[in-house]
Amino acid sequence: MSKTQQKIDFILELEKLKGVLRKTKPVGQERFENSAEHSWQTTLTAMILLDEADADIDVLKVLKMLLIHDVVEIDAGDVFVYDTSARAEIAEQEAAAAERIFGMLPQPMGDEMLALWHEFEGRQTPESKFAKAVDRVNPVIQNLTSDGQSWVENHISRDRVLAMNSEIEAASPELWAVLKARIEAFPFPEDQ
Amino acid sequence: MSKTQQKIDFILELEKLKGVLRKTKPVGQERFENSAEHSWQTTLTAMILLDEADADIDVLKVLKMLLIHDVVEIDAGDVFVYDTSARAEIAEQEAAAAERIFGMLPQPMGDEMLALWHEFEGRQTPESKFAKAVDRVNPVIQNLTSDGQSWVENHISRDRVLAMNSEIEAASPELWAVLKARIEAFPFPEDQ
Repeated sequence: MSKTQQKIDFILELEKLKGVLRKTKPVGQERFENSAEHSWQTTLTAMILLDEADADIDVLKVLKMLLIHDVVEIDAGDVFVYDTSARAEIAEQEAAAAERIFGMLPQPMGDEMLALWHEFEGRQTPESKFAKAVDRVNPVIQNLTSDGQSWVENHISRDRVLAMNSEIEAASPELWAVLKARIEAFPFPEDQ
Repeated sequence: MSKTQQKIDFILELEKLKGVLRKTKPVGQERFENSAEHSWQTTLTAMILLDEADADIDVLKVLKMLLIHDVVEIDAGDVFVYDTSARAEIAEQEAAAAERIFGMLPQPMGDEMLALWHEFEGRQTPESKFAKAVDRVNPVIQNLTSDGQSWVENHISRDRVLAMNSEIEAASPELWAVLKARIEAFPFPEDQ
């Protein structure tokens, strides 16, 4: 198969991420968000937060990581970030998905993308720590604006929201300070 | 308003692009595609085509351009690329939308994004020519896979499809050669 055909097949494979649904809804809409539109918003969020980050972060690497970070969900589905036991179970399935999907690309591009995805999941480098932190930002802003839609529907307590999202500080201490104060002031069902 | 609050407001504004519908449907789905998921797929497509491009192209600039290229549709809506008279009419509205939406960001970031958007629309630099060409790729692949869904529904002839998309050659001559041959062989309603 030609390299061009491999790329066409990969692009077509990406179509499927538009059908993988998350637990959050776009603000103002009744439907659930899909992982493709989430990936766009998260990558663009990284772009506007990066001026606050350490100068030694490779911006291009962060954007590439976030563009591909959810592609494995084509095979493995989206698992709610608060569902920690399911998240642990899915790890192997996601790794196999990364092999299959990035393996559709010509080499060495396929291996480069696979390495980038593993780096993201490994959370050890400045870029992956930053990208993982940014991946938490949008659901928090969505929930604070939409009466805590996915938190309430899934019975997530304030303590768990705070613990899960404190990672945002790694991307932007200023942003986390604002979001933390709002989560603390947010009327969770448990307060009643 | 703090810079952090400006960024939060901008991120929330982006939610609206998830509700702007295009004329194409994701392959295998009955609903229309929105401009947020299209922006993700297009940016990722640029990422995998860029190894074929001239070495003097600034990859980071291309990815940034494509991440923001459709944000103006929040105000101006999506106008079908084949609707050339409507596209001309909408240009002023899109420019005003760019001023408003990128103006929500702290400076100098807001002005930088606005300049990037104008550079994309101006189609004069290597990066904007490449990005504009990539923006044409996915609807062609979608239509070739989905019985020409948006071409047929909107009565677009083969000649117009070929003329509109020959620009893809600027991003990848190899890809355009393959797509051109498939468009030529595609059974348009006009052939019957």
